Amino acid sequence: MTLTTDLRLAEEMRQYEAEADVIVVGLGCAGASAAMQACDEGAEVLVLERAGGGGGTSANSGGLIYLGGGTPVQQAAGFDDTPEELFKFLMAVSAPGPDELKIRLFSEGSVDHFHWLEAQGVPFKRSFFPEPSMESSTDDCLVFSGGENCAPFDLIARPAARGHKPMTEGKAGPFFMQCMLAAVARRPLRVEYDVCVETLVRDRDGRIVGVVARRAGHEVVFRARRGVVLTAGGFVMNEEMVADHVPQLGRVGTRSGTEGDDGRGIRMGAAAGGVLLRMEHAEVALAATIPNRLGRGVYVNEHGMRFINEDTYYGHIGIEALFRQGGRVWLLLDDLTFERNFMGQEPAFVGETVAEIEAEAGFAEGVLQATVEQYNLSASRGEDPLFGKRAEFLVPLESPPYALLDCTVETGPYSGLTVGGLSTGLHGEVLDIEGGPIPGLYAAGRTAALFTGRGYAGSGISLADASFFGRRAGGHAAAQSSKG
Amino acid sequence: MTLTTDLRLAEEMRQYEAEADVIVVGLGCAGASAAMQACDEGAEVLVLERAGGGGGTSANSGGLIYLGGGTPVQQAAGFDDTPEELFKFLMAVSAPGPDELKIRLFSEGSVDHFHWLEAQGVPFKRSFFPEPSMESSTDDCLVFSGGENCAPFDLIARPAARGHKPMTEGKAGPFFMQCMLAAVARRPLRVEYDVCVETLVRDRDGRIVGVVARRAGHEVVFRARRGVVLTAGGFVMNEEMVADHVPQLGRVGTRSGTEGDDGRGIRMGAAAGGVLLRMEHAEVALAATIPNRLGRGVYVNEHGMRFINEDTYYGHIGIEALFRQGGRVWLLLDDLTFERNFMGQEPAFVGETVAEIEAEAGFAEGVLQATVEQYNLSASRGEDPLFGKRAEFLVPLESPPYALLDCTVETGPYSGLTVGGLSTGLHGEVLDIEGGPIPGLYAAGRTAALFTGRGYAGSGISLADASFFGRRAGGHAAAQSSKG
Repeated sequence: MTLTTDLRLAEEMRQYEAEADVIVVGLGCAGASAAMQACDEGAEVLVLERAGGGGGTSANSGGLIYLGGGTPVQQAAGFDDTPEELFKFLMAVSAPGPDELKIRLFSEGSVDHFHWLEAQGVPFKRSFFPEPSMESSTDDCLVFSGGENCAPFDLIARPAARGHKPMTEGKAGPFFMQCMLAAVARRPLRVEYDVCVETLVRDRDGRIVGVVARRAGHEVVFRARRGVVLTAGGFVMNEEMVADHVPQLGRVGTRSGTEGDDGRGIRMGAAAGGVLLRMEHAEVALAATIPNRLGRGVYVNEHGMRFINEDTYYGHIGIEALFRQGGRVWLLLDDLTFERNFMGQEPAFVGETVAEIEAEAGFAEGVLQATVEQYNLSASRGEDPLFGKRAEFLVPLESPPYALLDCTVETGPYSGLTVGGLSTGLHGEVLDIEGGPIPGLYAAGRTAALFTGRGYAGSGISLADASFFGRRAGGHAAAQSSKG
Repeated sequence: MTLTTDLRLAEEMRQYEAEADVIVVGLGCAGASAAMQACDEGAEVLVLERAGGGGGTSANSGGLIYLGGGTPVQQAAGFDDTPEELFKFLMAVSAPGPDELKIRLFSEGSVDHFHWLEAQGVPFKRSFFPEPSMESSTDDCLVFSGGENCAPFDLIARPAARGHKPMTEGKAGPFFMQCMLAAVARRPLRVEYDVCVETLVRDRDGRIVGVVARRAGHEVVFRARRGVVLTAGGFVMNEEMVADHVPQLGRVGTRSGTEGDDGRGIRMGAAAGGVLLRMEHAEVALAATIPNRLGRGVYVNEHGMRFINEDTYYGHIGIEALFRQGGRVWLLLDDLTFERNFMGQEPAFVGETVAEIEAEAGFAEGVLQATVEQYNLSASRGEDPLFGKRAEFLVPLESPPYALLDCTVETGPYSGLTVGGLSTGLHGEVLDIEGGPIPGLYAAGRTAALFTGRGYAGSGISLADASFFGRRAGGHAAAQSSKG
């Protein structure tokens, strides 16, 4: 019993500091959603947050929420989206091994969920922002945030923009969580801050019935009559877990997370018998093509070969670059297509010919030249038979000088986020190795495995997951019969 | 308590069928090694095997054992290997995230372990078989079984053949396990067959103290005074676990395993709090280049681009093809290099020119042609700047007709094996989510995560792992003080 996340037994607990029907651990987007839903379904709710205020990593995010199927914003902006098209896109983008049942549930419930968010006071302007793959600098709402209108997805599902940004200028995470926390504050539920939950409490029947926490250096115990919902973030800030489970992410400079993403929620759930899922995958963004028109350049791997349609979502590019190209990729531009990206990155190599760049950068003779030759031929025909890049991004690279941006993982603008966590059922119940629920235990947000699968659908899918399945977890926990 | 692998509590056990110091679950290579070591260190040992006889998947394998650092066979065959060279190779080939401590231990103990195997009656001829990547058809011993003399490893560690085949003609798994089982039979340890262990038993202090098993339809309980060693195989035959954890493997036609590889050992360990590691990786062999001289051809991905040095170990090729090239690869040969591979595979396409093949097979215009052009130029110079293929395999492909072998995962000669399993310490102790040992519980063989890391070192590494770390687990369990 020396390890903090080890289970504790109910019979050993001498006294409870307080009790509630549902205890929610963490007050980010998932925690707020779970707490509100549980409260609205009649449960007495206690939220325990380790920081001095709510928000978590959600408040530090871009604030996009991935929603579709025909939301009012989509309709106003002229996108003809349906639950079926959303489903088809999510199934394709989440391969291999997409979670069909959860994707179906989310696709069919997405419009309702939009209305719920608005009802909580999260405003969305009825407008479209045409620069894809990022949140708007204005207060506009909709963006293409997952390469929906790019190959191969444009042929699999009817393209629709689905990244919904709450109505504020620039990065929307802080504003979004401000709205959510205000909605929490309007409800008769209790939040305690500076309480770090460390351990779950289990009774003789194997049911999770409480938590042990640390407050001002002292151990305090809280009892949960109906259930505990773990919404304590992911593990991107836990170096050891990253090294054990997804070592490639250890090479990424920018981690999308806060101090709280130390995997504690995941570890508590695992100590209670929860099984870990998709721990070896991650969302990795390579943001070298912001603004998006930089996608008129050509990405090459260490062999000088193309590997992706450069106009797609930078998250798809990052995953491909890190996990399948060894993190060794470069972006080639010519004088016509070159501009500073949002990182202001200087070219690593400049040359009057592709052959010169090829030699300077140390590529094997001829391959980069053949790549550009084939690409230019394709571009002059207005089609990209290899990767399906859109015609508007196909410009022959034939205006010297040429520039090569270093997008290797050690120097390029990468950022990463864990997608692995506890395996959960359709109601957010934490599942054991046999797929059965652990009574009284729920997880949502990045403490759970991303609901869609291994691919990362697009910017906003993590907050969509956290809020949609957070609500389901809170609601299901609230509906359990109280334990004595 | 309806699920079979759920933990059972010692206090609920009414009577024990039998007891022993150490209980070993499964009698494949890992189980035999663990049982013998425990016995030799003075423990009373009971082995429980679910089949009617010992052998497990090890008896159904090729029988190679990956050993090095200067074994008598290596010395006789003229290979100047050292523990340090073995270490360097294993670290490089096991990336990302190699397990340095275990690799160090194995590298330094490998020669001793060879002597131990011989002392058990496993004979090894002092000879080298020059066809790499497969066991000999003769009774010769040593083979290059992991691409040690191929790029990039040939420049990282001094190449040495390390696949040791026990002295028998052809496939050696059955013979190897026959020797091991005879060694087991010479010892005063008890084996019970047709006993399927289903559940671990834990006492109040959290220690694993026994197992619940099924024998002839009845539940029987066995008590372990010092420890339980799980050596019950992997999960390659459990469709649901494969789909959950490594869905790509679900596409592979041939599974290297037996019925027993249903993940039961892993599931039992997980139910006791053991954490799962490397579950999303697998060993995947693409055996299209047997005989190895077929590596004079050129592998291309779905874009018509090369992706690997074709002369390397078929296991490295298979992992690259399935996990990084989407399982969509082809092998191009010309009239000079063509021959039937060991599968007798017919070409999918034949053509008088590369352009003809390119068009017939539906590749984008020009890329396959550029690939062959670049390759032929390299081959004519006797070097492969892209992938470092050895000069003896570099022959320009310029003798029509050309043939394209279909090596996509749906039709090519793939076989796969799980490498994920329970996380274990240096003594085979099963670790929980915090990295602490679960008292009384050990795992080895494919019930544990492969000791090296995510890459697959070469043919024979799984039996090396099973026997080397199986012994360590059995020895450590034997050394525990008995529980009353």
